[in-house]
Amino acid sequence: MAEQVRAIRTRQAILSAAAKVFDERGYQAATISEILAAAGVTKGALYFHFQSKEDLAQGVLTAQNEDLLLPERAAKLQEVVDVVMLHTHRLKTNPMVRAGVRLSLDQNAVGLDRSGPFRNWVVTMQDLLEKAQVQGELLPHVVPAETADVLVGAYGGIQSMSQAMTDHQDLGQRVNALLRHLLPSVAQPSVLASLHLGEGRAQEVYDEARQLAQDHAEETQSL
Amino acid sequence: MAEQVRAIRTRQAILSAAAKVFDERGYQAATISEILAAAGVTKGALYFHFQSKEDLAQGVLTAQNEDLLLPERAAKLQEVVDVVMLHTHRLKTNPMVRAGVRLSLDQNAVGLDRSGPFRNWVVTMQDLLEKAQVQGELLPHVVPAETADVLVGAYGGIQSMSQAMTDHQDLGQRVNALLRHLLPSVAQPSVLASLHLGEGRAQEVYDEARQLAQDHAEETQSL
Repeated sequence: MAEQVRAIRTRQAILSAAAKVFDERGYQAATISEILAAAGVTKGALYFHFQSKEDLAQGVLTAQNEDLLLPERAAKLQEVVDVVMLHTHRLKTNPMVRAGVRLSLDQNAVGLDRSGPFRNWVVTMQDLLEKAQVQGELLPHVVPAETADVLVGAYGGIQSMSQAMTDHQDLGQRVNALLRHLLPSVAQPSVLASLHLGEGRAQEVYDEARQLAQDHAEETQSL
Repeated sequence: MAEQVRAIRTRQAILSAAAKVFDERGYQAATISEILAAAGVTKGALYFHFQSKEDLAQGVLTAQNEDLLLPERAAKLQEVVDVVMLHTHRLKTNPMVRAGVRLSLDQNAVGLDRSGPFRNWVVTMQDLLEKAQVQGELLPHVVPAETADVLVGAYGGIQSMSQAMTDHQDLGQRVNALLRHLLPSVAQPSVLASLHLGEGRAQEVYDEARQLAQDHAEETQSL
């Protein structure tokens, strides 16, 4: 058991180092030696967990979809909003998420399949939108798969623009503006009126998610 | 006069070569020697027009906002749509525009100010939206500067996602879906109903713009 914990920690340390190096240098310029140096692990340990630079990048790409544990809400559209809000908070504060988003938009990353995070985000959103549809929250013409595509694509651009112009300082405002522009074409007016989209929502949802993860960890420990 | 024409052609050849090299290699990895080789001009000629790699990249970045000559429309929101459509067509067919968009989203381009195209696009859109507002085309709560920001940011992401997933093959569909999601929050219903947003619109607008540019060139020649 102790060994397993150590292995998980080593893997985590390598991924964090990889995120740092990819974020600073981009996929193309980053080297495994740099990641090794940053992680402070042996070559053997690194290759035990990851076969290649691409493999390391895939690990970082995947991390942006992890830890999205959120409480259920009566309105599924509120869950859509909250997933967006939580991701926004993590993008501003979590270097791994930041690196993953950067990698997924890195056109210089030749040979790296960057479609995974897009696909995962679309699946997450589509799933929530389909549930919202079943509950009668959506306008009649909405096609969940299409709206999921628009939401994920548009979000990616909003964050790129915020990064290029203010290094993500104004991300919260921009995300709020995006949601106010998209949701009226998607939600029934009565649902729309009940949604919390304010800028404080990101911090709120993040605190809730952290509490939930903590409770979950304590539960697991006491088993 | 002949010399001036030659200078414009040389500048154009250098920019095309720079676009090609930046598009293939990314900003960071691209070198002036590669651009020189691709352009087939002397070092002296290149440095006469551009001082540095950054200067070359700024030239490519600027090109995406050029040649946006479009006929006026009764509804200014149709002009907003048409600018988006024309850019979509150019992004799929014009290597210079493709390279410019790629550069503006290249987070590895350290030292390159990539905010210019975002700002230019926002100014173009804001200007059209303000005119639309004066004509009573917008819903009462719309703030043109904010809507311009959302539109430009969201478009950037939609095209990134389309590039990552289908190398822009499905860009037309995705842009159409984006507009159908954003415009109902912006346009008065009567104006919304009159807008042409179909996928054929991009080709239509492009042909019109080309005709306009040709007429303009003939007029200039006959002066």
